[in-house]
Amino acid sequence: MTKIKKYLHTDLGHSTPDKITVRGRDLPSEILGHLNLGDMAFLELTGRMPTPQESVTFNAIVVTLVEHGITPSALVARLTYAGAPEALQAAVGAGLCGLGSVFVGSTEGAARMLSEAIPAGTEPTRPLADMARDIVADYRARKQIVPGLGHPLHKPIDPRTPRLFEIAAENGFSGHYVALIQAVQDEAERVSGKSLPVNATGAIGAIATELGLPWRIVRGLGVMARAIGLVGHILEESQDPMGIEIWQRVEKEAGGPRQD
Amino acid sequence: MTKIKKYLHTDLGHSTPDKITVRGRDLPSEILGHLNLGDMAFLELTGRMPTPQESVTFNAIVVTLVEHGITPSALVARLTYAGAPEALQAAVGAGLCGLGSVFVGSTEGAARMLSEAIPAGTEPTRPLADMARDIVADYRARKQIVPGLGHPLHKPIDPRTPRLFEIAAENGFSGHYVALIQAVQDEAERVSGKSLPVNATGAIGAIATELGLPWRIVRGLGVMARAIGLVGHILEESQDPMGIEIWQRVEKEAGGPRQD
Amino acid sequence: MTKIKKYLHTDLGHSTPDKITVRGRDLPSEILGHLNLGDMAFLELTGRMPTPQESVTFNAIVVTLVEHGITPSALVARLTYAGAPEALQAAVGAGLCGLGSVFVGSTEGAARMLSEAIPAGTEPTRPLADMARDIVADYRARKQIVPGLGHPLHKPIDPRTPRLFEIAAENGFSGHYVALIQAVQDEAERVSGKSLPVNATGAIGAIATELGLPWRIVRGLGVMARAIGLVGHILEESQDPMGIEIWQRVEKEAGGPRQD
Amino acid sequence: MTKIKKYLHTDLGHSTPDKITVRGRDLPSEILGHLNLGDMAFLELTGRMPTPQESVTFNAIVVTLVEHGITPSALVARLTYAGAPEALQAAVGAGLCGLGSVFVGSTEGAARMLSEAIPAGTEPTRPLADMARDIVADYRARKQIVPGLGHPLHKPIDPRTPRLFEIAAENGFSGHYVALIQAVQDEAERVSGKSLPVNATGAIGAIATELGLPWRIVRGLGVMARAIGLVGHILEESQDPMGIEIWQRVEKEAGGPRQD
Repeated sequence: MTKIKKYLHTDLGHSTPDKITVRGRDLPSEILGHLNLGDMAFLELTGRMPTPQESVTFNAIVVTLVEHGITPSALVARLTYAGAPEALQAAVGAGLCGLGSVFVGSTEGAARMLSEAIPAGTEPTRPLADMARDIVADYRARKQIVPGLGHPLHKPIDPRTPRLFEIAAENGFSGHYVALIQAVQDEAERVSGKSLPVNATGAIGAIATELGLPWRIVRGLGVMARAIGLVGHILEESQDPMGIEIWQRVEKEAGGPRQD
Repeated sequence: MTKIKKYLHTDLGHSTPDKITVRGRDLPSEILGHLNLGDMAFLELTGRMPTPQESVTFNAIVVTLVEHGITPSALVARLTYAGAPEALQAAVGAGLCGLGSVFVGSTEGAARMLSEAIPAGTEPTRPLADMARDIVADYRARKQIVPGLGHPLHKPIDPRTPRLFEIAAENGFSGHYVALIQAVQDEAERVSGKSLPVNATGAIGAIATELGLPWRIVRGLGVMARAIGLVGHILEESQDPMGIEIWQRVEKEAGGPRQD
Repeated sequence: MTKIKKYLHTDLGHSTPDKITVRGRDLPSEILGHLNLGDMAFLELTGRMPTPQESVTFNAIVVTLVEHGITPSALVARLTYAGAPEALQAAVGAGLCGLGSVFVGSTEGAARMLSEAIPAGTEPTRPLADMARDIVADYRARKQIVPGLGHPLHKPIDPRTPRLFEIAAENGFSGHYVALIQAVQDEAERVSGKSLPVNATGAIGAIATELGLPWRIVRGLGVMARAIGLVGHILEESQDPMGIEIWQRVEKEAGGPRQD
Repeated sequence: MTKIKKYLHTDLGHSTPDKITVRGRDLPSEILGHLNLGDMAFLELTGRMPTPQESVTFNAIVVTLVEHGITPSALVARLTYAGAPEALQAAVGAGLCGLGSVFVGSTEGAARMLSEAIPAGTEPTRPLADMARDIVADYRARKQIVPGLGHPLHKPIDPRTPRLFEIAAENGFSGHYVALIQAVQDEAERVSGKSLPVNATGAIGAIATELGLPWRIVRGLGVMARAIGLVGHILEESQDPMGIEIWQRVEKEAGGPRQD
């Protein structure tokens, strides 16, 4: 059985009749009107206000993940809304449930790889190229793909990656982790003979680790961002629906005789 | 059967090998580094960039809804994470499912009340006090509570309300809808003899309507904001858990003999 | 604020080191091997063992709701599983979220209509045809459709309805509620001039009310049954997937130029 | 990118205006009134009708998983319902999201362990005690706990296990898999010096594998069963609530000063 503490406590927020405190700050006077939504997310996750550089960089990585057109998560939200339009919140909740190991959750793989190689608060103890060689060899030995490299659609490069790295560099967040994932790219391309550029997932995993976020919560950046995008899809679905049409097309085809 | 269109289209976003377009704008060059997360949500919902005034006002209303301490939604996310820590996204999704008619979803009631009284793009056709009298009488006749007024904890006033109205006023969004909900407060207090100040829900419903958002999507503001807060709760739960302790306390008490 | 009790209690089940009790019965010795899954659901909802007649009838109505081919809920479960195959439970959970007012949840409308007309434990106080006339007039006055009548696909009749009514009759559950929904059908057809036979939703709502289930939980019959069906869809998806293909087709079409 | 097929097909069910077919059988005439809910689940998962022995055994294992008192999943469903009583289906869906690696999902670990040791359709190639020795050594080498053994509450034994094994034996399903998990228990107890009896999770994993179910879907048995239990909890919550009281207790305690 999981070890448990015997008292209950949160540092995130609490309320009294005349005060609402979030992360130790008075919500009305210290937060509202002063923080944008990305800054608020940074405060929520780290317990402190972002610097201007952190603000720009953190906002950029979460903004990247808001909208990527018709994704499985967008289809799930739309199809759920079609059946229960009175429960918009459940349509967003359902849409988030699929952000697992295959899609958005994969940012966590890159962050984990990097933060396990160079633990938070430490300096690299040997050349990054050596680390990259061991990392790639390890994934190949386990027959797993290296996270954060390559993209099925965006070729030759993922157009988000250079822009994210540019923003990180301009704001002082192009350190060991960004360098290491680029070394991993070089090594993976060398041993495979294929083009495997860092994708948005890899760039976000690296930059989030530069910002000091623990890898276990990096998937959460995609989850919070996509929640915004899914509200957008539901608004469009309410005005210009596609859910029922998709269902009817699939039902008609899939209910017929097998074609293989 | 729901009327359906026979083609599928989205205006939100699409991708080609070398471009990612969101709401008609190039994501890397026009959005990343330029928009904060609240601005991105505004773009996603409205299809256009916010003005500086819209940016401040919109960010303030969504920031308000991110964190409110231990709420039922936070408990749900934490208890779900305790059982499935490998699926953080599902813990957030589960937490959102309860943002319905009783809690966060109630913002939609205020927005609907106001936008049905003064349809979008029109001017009030009679004094707001007259409208307020009819609105309050109508809710009382249906034995329903007027949305957006009073608060069980925050007394005598909800400390978020004056600050939100101040930000709205400073940015030019203190128009008919803000005035109308204040008139509704006056009328509700007059007929009930009780103190029923506009709460954060009411203020957000009014300001969202000032910003031109349709009432059907106002609940979505709370949903997207709370998704951020729930990621924060899961991070804390992963470091300093309370889910298992709560479960064990409740199980022990509730499995005993009935006490009434 | 919702009125609350100050102690916590459940009658459903509790455990000690050597005993597991469900609804007052010893799970290993009194339930396992004695009750089928539908009987267990009946015990869970009512607190008592079903009679043989209740067992057949209750099992029939929940079995009806397990599988209906490719539905929006099945698509949601499959698309969610495609993104997070490690979290099967979240794929089922997501699929259930859309069983709201438009689809499966609609059984509750029929049950509510019937149990409000003839409250549980009472006899009809006037001819059913008179009740039916008032019911239909009331829905028409509110411009709402009468629940439980007609079907977009199953014409001229829903093939489940006569079989469900036959099972109910054979087991002594063809009472006032079944008669009333048939009277409602007659009246609705008379005033509309259209064929509006009782559909499976209406039959299930009527028979569930005959069985004494409160209307607020009737939607839950579809939810529990569909959870079984969704596990079946996920098993098939794991062996013979369609989620990714559907996504790619929709993305390709919907990302193109508008066609209207 | 996942390899995909280019056509869409399901064997589960389809409908025409006058027929509803599930797994190749006519729903009204061949299923309704003939199958109980557990048999229907068996048909849905396997494509064939259960024998009487399969029916008793399969129903017993799913019935076991319906209700276990106040669990985290029950709390999640109740807290979600408290916020969105109009969306019962989302409360059940939220409750299911936590049935992951820590709780109910753990049945899959036992089924996987057993079916990887003795692949479906094969005979054991060496003594079960030898297999058990290797299995336990392997888990210990990976510093993981052996699935399906021991229980934090039910001591010295889980009262469900002997009854489930008895039902399996009476119906001809006490074969290699049941024998192997018992050998694993013996070995684990030998090397650890602790009492580690097979728990309900282990018994269900073994019996499900005896029934020929693939390990990837065994977690689904708990998911479908618990969906039924959660509807029961929501019904009780609607009549005798605990969600709000739990929330208020936790909020009051957790919002205070840290106690460690």
